Amino acid sequence: MVVVLEKNVSDKQIENIIKHLEDFGFAVHKSTGIEQIVLGAIGVKPDFDTRKVKILDGVAEVYRITEPFKLASRSFQKEDTVIKIKNVSIGGNEVVMMAGPCSVESEEQIFTVAEIVAKAGAKILRGGAFKPRTSPYSFQGLGEQGLKLLRNAADKYNLLVITEVMESSQIKLIEEYTDIFQVGARNMQNFSLLRDLGKTSKPIMLKRGLSATVEDWLMSAEYILSNGNKEVMLCERGIRTFETYTRNTFDLSAIPVVHKRSHLPVIADPSHATGLRDKVLPMARAAVAAGTDGLMVEVHNDPEKALSDGPQALLPDQFAELMQQVKLIAEVIGRKM
Amino acid sequence: MVVVLEKNVSDKQIENIIKHLEDFGFAVHKSTGIEQIVLGAIGVKPDFDTRKVKILDGVAEVYRITEPFKLASRSFQKEDTVIKIKNVSIGGNEVVMMAGPCSVESEEQIFTVAEIVAKAGAKILRGGAFKPRTSPYSFQGLGEQGLKLLRNAADKYNLLVITEVMESSQIKLIEEYTDIFQVGARNMQNFSLLRDLGKTSKPIMLKRGLSATVEDWLMSAEYILSNGNKEVMLCERGIRTFETYTRNTFDLSAIPVVHKRSHLPVIADPSHATGLRDKVLPMARAAVAAGTDGLMVEVHNDPEKALSDGPQALLPDQFAELMQQVKLIAEVIGRKM
Amino acid sequence: MVVVLEKNVSDKQIENIIKHLEDFGFAVHKSTGIEQIVLGAIGVKPDFDTRKVKILDGVAEVYRITEPFKLASRSFQKEDTVIKIKNVSIGGNEVVMMAGPCSVESEEQIFTVAEIVAKAGAKILRGGAFKPRTSPYSFQGLGEQGLKLLRNAADKYNLLVITEVMESSQIKLIEEYTDIFQVGARNMQNFSLLRDLGKTSKPIMLKRGLSATVEDWLMSAEYILSNGNKEVMLCERGIRTFETYTRNTFDLSAIPVVHKRSHLPVIADPSHATGLRDKVLPMARAAVAAGTDGLMVEVHNDPEKALSDGPQALLPDQFAELMQQVKLIAEVIGRKM
Amino acid sequence: MVVVLEKNVSDKQIENIIKHLEDFGFAVHKSTGIEQIVLGAIGVKPDFDTRKVKILDGVAEVYRITEPFKLASRSFQKEDTVIKIKNVSIGGNEVVMMAGPCSVESEEQIFTVAEIVAKAGAKILRGGAFKPRTSPYSFQGLGEQGLKLLRNAADKYNLLVITEVMESSQIKLIEEYTDIFQVGARNMQNFSLLRDLGKTSKPIMLKRGLSATVEDWLMSAEYILSNGNKEVMLCERGIRTFETYTRNTFDLSAIPVVHKRSHLPVIADPSHATGLRDKVLPMARAAVAAGTDGLMVEVHNDPEKALSDGPQALLPDQFAELMQQVKLIAEVIGRKM
Repeated sequence: MVVVLEKNVSDKQIENIIKHLEDFGFAVHKSTGIEQIVLGAIGVKPDFDTRKVKILDGVAEVYRITEPFKLASRSFQKEDTVIKIKNVSIGGNEVVMMAGPCSVESEEQIFTVAEIVAKAGAKILRGGAFKPRTSPYSFQGLGEQGLKLLRNAADKYNLLVITEVMESSQIKLIEEYTDIFQVGARNMQNFSLLRDLGKTSKPIMLKRGLSATVEDWLMSAEYILSNGNKEVMLCERGIRTFETYTRNTFDLSAIPVVHKRSHLPVIADPSHATGLRDKVLPMARAAVAAGTDGLMVEVHNDPEKALSDGPQALLPDQFAELMQQVKLIAEVIGRKM
Repeated sequence: MVVVLEKNVSDKQIENIIKHLEDFGFAVHKSTGIEQIVLGAIGVKPDFDTRKVKILDGVAEVYRITEPFKLASRSFQKEDTVIKIKNVSIGGNEVVMMAGPCSVESEEQIFTVAEIVAKAGAKILRGGAFKPRTSPYSFQGLGEQGLKLLRNAADKYNLLVITEVMESSQIKLIEEYTDIFQVGARNMQNFSLLRDLGKTSKPIMLKRGLSATVEDWLMSAEYILSNGNKEVMLCERGIRTFETYTRNTFDLSAIPVVHKRSHLPVIADPSHATGLRDKVLPMARAAVAAGTDGLMVEVHNDPEKALSDGPQALLPDQFAELMQQVKLIAEVIGRKM
Repeated sequence: MVVVLEKNVSDKQIENIIKHLEDFGFAVHKSTGIEQIVLGAIGVKPDFDTRKVKILDGVAEVYRITEPFKLASRSFQKEDTVIKIKNVSIGGNEVVMMAGPCSVESEEQIFTVAEIVAKAGAKILRGGAFKPRTSPYSFQGLGEQGLKLLRNAADKYNLLVITEVMESSQIKLIEEYTDIFQVGARNMQNFSLLRDLGKTSKPIMLKRGLSATVEDWLMSAEYILSNGNKEVMLCERGIRTFETYTRNTFDLSAIPVVHKRSHLPVIADPSHATGLRDKVLPMARAAVAAGTDGLMVEVHNDPEKALSDGPQALLPDQFAELMQQVKLIAEVIGRKM
Repeated sequence: MVVVLEKNVSDKQIENIIKHLEDFGFAVHKSTGIEQIVLGAIGVKPDFDTRKVKILDGVAEVYRITEPFKLASRSFQKEDTVIKIKNVSIGGNEVVMMAGPCSVESEEQIFTVAEIVAKAGAKILRGGAFKPRTSPYSFQGLGEQGLKLLRNAADKYNLLVITEVMESSQIKLIEEYTDIFQVGARNMQNFSLLRDLGKTSKPIMLKRGLSATVEDWLMSAEYILSNGNKEVMLCERGIRTFETYTRNTFDLSAIPVVHKRSHLPVIADPSHATGLRDKVLPMARAAVAAGTDGLMVEVHNDPEKALSDGPQALLPDQFAELMQQVKLIAEVIGRKM
């Protein structure tokens, strides 16, 4: 931690600041420049609140010089984390497609969509059984019946399953059916849920919160990692800004940023990021071009009848076209799909 | 719902759009203007996804003309909701002070702080026993022991208790000790938790999420209300913006905005909104001047030793000064404190 | 314009609202639904301030159903605007590369960079002679001497010139040297400048303001178009959000959004959007995959010595690699570069 | 400047980084901690781009430990700047009211409004003669005729004049009529205009840009100050966020923040910040409670007929009520109005 003192700091204030720093457990080095004095405080713990120093008399600025996350950081682990589930690897050279409907609605629907996405090249079937809907009056999912249908449809077409868990009490049930737990954007800082998922042994996909910085996001990953589960992948799905033409602003720069700061894989979800079907294809291409390790896309055989998020779901033909285009883009940057 | 058609829409497209609207259950009125055709679709349900219409060929824009929340709206209930707990009324003419430490840390600490805030005029004691910390390595609260200490301290000084609930499994335990459940900003869209709190019979204070619009916030209140619990108060605690000098941006305009849109009381939390002690006094004054129904302020007898958020906690003398000033401001606008 | 009345509106209030609307020049149609009355007000002018209606007693909501821009809209002109300058077309099938240093610094520098970018396939040379620097103490550009050097370097390597104009008094001078006027993000709503550029006959590239919605941006384009100059292209260069790992948040979804709303070409600038060299390559690829009509990229022969923005400038080899990759991505979506 | 090195930095990299720092003109101190090496680089110039160091191999983070503004900073000048114009002081103990219509529309209008605001206690008459309108089709102001009317009305009622300047070519004309130049939010980073205003001898009120951080804002003030004009006041008028119920988000915390960082006075404009009349009164009270040095409020004798921004203008009675209330709040915090 670096503590910059005010220009007119008194000797007594300096003494007091150094005493506080030592009481907090730091070793302190003092550097006197022409204009300002700077204290180096060695030994900051990840949970130290730097504002404790910022409020001392005579302190101008405080900089925590270490990242607040550890296990999630690239400096802790140099090699990319590659998550292997059956025959699928996430975080390696292959770009993985996760596709399916927003919600599991019926046997016919999920088997139809599973067949469509499997034929087009998807490896993982997505579909919600418990839905976090903004309105209490909206369809809330089929629950366990939805999980069963999802698993059966995935098995028939040789796909893996990813589905969302909304609360700790659902973990045990969902664990029986899914291959990957999805944590939704609105739960990214539901720390109880993260802690409990950290104690499971299945991979987790952690969606970025609507107003989460990349640092917040990696701190939430740290919650899972520090509880023992090392198989975490991140998912960029748009952040909230002032722009209203799209549902959210798809922050594709987060992909190379995360790859630099962390060893964890990053997935991109253009369906939720844009909220409208005709923006999914160009933004899926852009995500692959930016280096994503996977895509999550909503597909529905009859989007106009969908019980949730139909307007952002691709039609079967559009999905097939998307797969063709993103495969070619993956090849341009030396990856395969 | 109002559906504006594109200028060059064909008769066949119009027919198709009207058919879809009728299939969705709407009664449709068509108005032909000089430049554009507008369809009025009567009978929108709160959970209807307007994007289902937006993606139809020939549609230019869609406006939902009713608010997506109902029980929370001023049009549903004209009179202000006043929440009465023992001898305290929230949402009436009195401006209520909730004060205390960020976390309950020890018997000595919480009794000392309770005495300080009671003497200065606070009616409700705040203090966390389960803490939602961004870092998994930070102090997570004393748990049940903290709840007991908090209750005892409040009882001794004739205060009510407010404390945070982080997950559904904690509700039963916390209900034994608290007078008001607090839902933190990071859980504002933890819909499982909201639903379960809606089934309790104690008042809820719902903090605004970092990136929640007022509409999102009222939708979350609707989750609680629609499950049966009518005693909901809202708490503005800052939103996330690009500005970094303060921890968050305190959106005080939200106070008159909520009062116009909803009948629910609004509390303001200048401690979390600004994140630094020296900004709490001016912003508490501003919140009262803007019409808040209550304040929530962090106070600590020894902030430099606090286990969490010490830098934003007021010292006892500062709190007494704050109480004096906000009382006078409340009087200027015809309220008491 | 659609005016939704409050549920409990009185007959007298309705009369008064209709009278006001008629006084404002609207033809009014009234539709009575089960729950609410909706007035259709036909004939809204682009400059009508809908808040004039919103404040009338009995009005719940007001929706302007027409876009506030006209000449810039896709409904006004169906075909893409293609801007032809000598042998270069912007907005057609070709994706155009604009490259060069942030500032023109010396004859040697600009000729060296011009040669590098021309050989790699750029068509347009960028470089600032008048620099809008955040700090008054920073290098402000070479002025007219910079313009001369830029023109000569471009001519030698058969490139077009784009350079920034900061104020109306510079227009005449810069017009002698440039092929395209650039309006910087900070001047996007400098309406005097836009008006005066609208009276020139050279193409304009209008950068998006840091907090400009797509609608604001198209309104600024409208200022230029409505003054007579039809050759406007837009440039996405990042918006301001809460995320700090990148300088700005590159809003690539704006590319398909603008293409749907407007007929004007869109350029993307990954150098300013991200602010760091190692993010430029992936985000340039992403922009082409998202459908941009052109790229603007900073290149410097010796970035460590650059007088401005060196850290985001590509090295010559990096630029050559970028050109190779974006060409291949352009081909995937049926365009050439 | 503090340069934190990567954990695994090599000796050769350290040497190279130190060499670069010395070439940039810094004196370098090296501190070796247990986990990381930190370099103190003394002598950073205000215009140094720290990214030049951030991109060097082996560098983890770079912190500029001095503020990029100088003349505007509290550390440069301890005492509050008090701007005296005739019998009015801005930045002292008195809270100053600036009021008037958005635009000067006619002789009758401006004289009527001037009388109203003078009687209620305003000291300064506001009114636009040159209007920066988002739409090219909106009323653009009366120009010089408007300036004359504004001056005459102010003189008759013993008020000062403040009016907006949009471009350098207007400075000379406006200077003849106004007492204070206003720079609008959209021109906050129109550096040419700031530079030219810095050479005048009349006070400047600099409105905060929609997406300007407090640091950006003070940097823009620095442009004016460094060109010789020391009489600068700042004006908070709302920033752009995701919230849409209000036109902008009024960042009242910026008032105590600016007072800590700078010696310049701060004015608050609740009319533009909220955009609706019924929010102006509570937010004006809040601004005074937060410590503003002045208010700018829109008042119109007939807002429904106003040519611009009528919906946010107060009626005469509302303005009188506002003056009464804010006076009492000013007294609570020991100021007068």
